[in-house]
Parts: sequence; C-alpha cells; structure tokens
Amino acid sequence: MLHLHSTSPDRWLRQVEENLNTILIDHAHCEQKAASTAMNLMFEYVENEALTATMTEIVTEELEHFHMVLKLLKERGIRFIKLKPGTYGRQLKALCRRQEPHKAMDHLLVAALIEARSCERFVLLRDHLDDRELSEFYGSLYESEARHHATYVRLAMDYGSQEEVGARLDELATAEAEIIAAGYEQPRVHS
Amino acid sequence: MLHLHSTSPDRWLRQVEENLNTILIDHAHCEQKAASTAMNLMFEYVENEALTATMTEIVTEELEHFHMVLKLLKERGIRFIKLKPGTYGRQLKALCRRQEPHKAMDHLLVAALIEARSCERFVLLRDHLDDRELSEFYGSLYESEARHHATYVRLAMDYGSQEEVGARLDELATAEAEIIAAGYEQPRVHS
Repeated sequence: MLHLHSTSPDRWLRQVEENLNTILIDHAHCEQKAASTAMNLMFEYVENEALTATMTEIVTEELEHFHMVLKLLKERGIRFIKLKPGTYGRQLKALCRRQEPHKAMDHLLVAALIEARSCERFVLLRDHLDDRELSEFYGSLYESEARHHATYVRLAMDYGSQEEVGARLDELATAEAEIIAAGYEQPRVHS
Repeated sequence: MLHLHSTSPDRWLRQVEENLNTILIDHAHCEQKAASTAMNLMFEYVENEALTATMTEIVTEELEHFHMVLKLLKERGIRFIKLKPGTYGRQLKALCRRQEPHKAMDHLLVAALIEARSCERFVLLRDHLDDRELSEFYGSLYESEARHHATYVRLAMDYGSQEEVGARLDELATAEAEIIAAGYEQPRVHS
C-alpha cells in the first residue's frame, strides 16, 4: 500500500538509538519541509482546485505535527537548532522531470514516497523505541503519513493515466530504495 | 498605527475599478505569498519560539483568506491563473540588510509594511467599491492585516532595541511610500 521497494535497514535503527535527540530535531525539520512542499505545490498548480484544497489541509496538519515535535523537544530540554539536511530529499527531487505534466506527476510522487518512508519508519520507532512516550508519539503519527501518501498518489493521477502514474511510481520507488540503501552518515529521519 | 508614510493615490482606485477581476486574482496570490513569507520566517528563525508559534497562526490564517478569495473567484466564474507579480514585494525585499540581526529585523519590518499597505487598501476597497459583496468582504479582512502588522513589528523587537526598530521602520516606510508613489503599470493589490 505504501509502494516502497525496501524496508529500512537495521543500520538506521542503530543510528536512531544512538542519536535520539538529533532524530527528534530532524523530525521537526521534516515536518516543516513537508508543510513547505505542500505549500509550494499549491503555488505551482493554482489551477488544480482539488490539489489546492488538499494542500491547505496538509500544510495545516504538518504544522500541527511540527508543533507537537517542538513541544516534545522543549519538555526534554533539547534545543531546536538547524541541522545540515540529509541528501535524501535532494536526491529524490533531482529525479523529477522538468516538463509538464511530468514535472507535476513526479513532484507529487516524490512527496508520496517521502510520506511513505516516514510512515514505515514511524512504525519502526513505535515498535522499537524503549522510550514509551516517543513510542506512543510515533504510533499516533504514522497513519497520517500513510494518508498523505495515498493523497499524493491520487493527485498525481491528474497528470497522467493510472498506468503511467503506476509505472513512474514504480521507477521512483526503486530509486528511493537505492538512496535509502546507500544511507547517510549523519543520523536523520531519512538517513 | 500602521506606520505608513503615504495614503494610496487615486490612481490606484482607478486601476482597481477598471480591473476588478485581476485585482481579485492578485489578491489570492497575495494571500499565498503572505502564507509563504510567514512559513519562511519560521524556517529561518527556528530558535525563536514566539516567532515560530505566531508564524504558524499567520500561515493558517493567510491560507484561510486564500480560500475565501478562491471561493469568490469561483462564484464569479473568474479563473484563478498565474499573474506576473508586481515589483512591490521584490523592491521591498531588496532593501533588507544581509547580516543578522539586521536581516531578521528588516524582513519582519518589510512583512509588517506589506500588511499595513494591504490594510490601508482594503479599507479603501470597503469604502469605494460599488460591489456590495466585495465591499463587505474587504471590510471583514482589513482588521487581520492591521493585527499582523502589529505582530510583525513586535517580533522585530527581538532583533534590536525599540529605538533601532522604530528608526528602521521609519526608513523602510519612507522607501515603501516611494515605491507606492512610483506605481506599477499592471493592476495589482500593491500597484
């Protein structure tokens, strides 16, 4: 259902366990980026009424999550600082084609895959974290990531047939799995 | 209270009257840009807790207004299309200093002035438009612009003394009045 071509390697869970505070800070940045992505899509495709309406909901929801993470950081005395972003998002965005309608389709599918990977990882965090509060927190978040994933895939269908979208999602999911397999040396939500 | 150094020229009201549909479309874009500005400030100054909290509220509110304008456009059968943006915002942003904390102060004060000018013009639209629905619409919006103006000025005080902020606001307001006086050939909310 999430269209991912791999499960996260154990290596990632070890990165998380050893750097939980950094992962939480990065998670706050991810929610900001997700809000920003939705806002940018809304700006780019103003004439798509369904997209515009849905993106507004997603912006609002991501900002709510952002504040939930900020609250957690504050309660734990972790300072919210800037982090050098991982290369995951950048590498995925580099795969997007430049010409419309492919550009729209690809950006929506990349957003869908990022949501899918977050969902998969939030479930892992729910199941593996010893910290009960965080485990419950991630258990409360993963469903919205799955919902956003489905929303982005559905919106991509405005820019191509079901077959085209399915084939492209498959290609991008293969690339996404390779990026995840290569990893990133710093601990990040998508490292 | 709005710290503006000029009132809008009659020339602008004539532009509006002759191009009401374009002004409405541009208004939708302005609400998007206002949401985007608030989001970008939130991203840039993550460590400022009050700013982050307030910016989230402003993003949400601007997106609500955006949807109100979209609804008006739809009811009137006006297609929401991209418009070449006016030079107002760009010229103001070019005045922002590049080094912190001046950069933060200036971006917040420029945002404050844009809100102030919108407020002043929405009051003019309320008072001058023959179209009763639109007149009431702008009458319902101007107060939030005034509130946002005050919020941005208050947040700027985190980046300098009251005297410094007051002096800089004065300088920027002088420049803003010059940009408004020069005008823009296409009808825009800030032309």
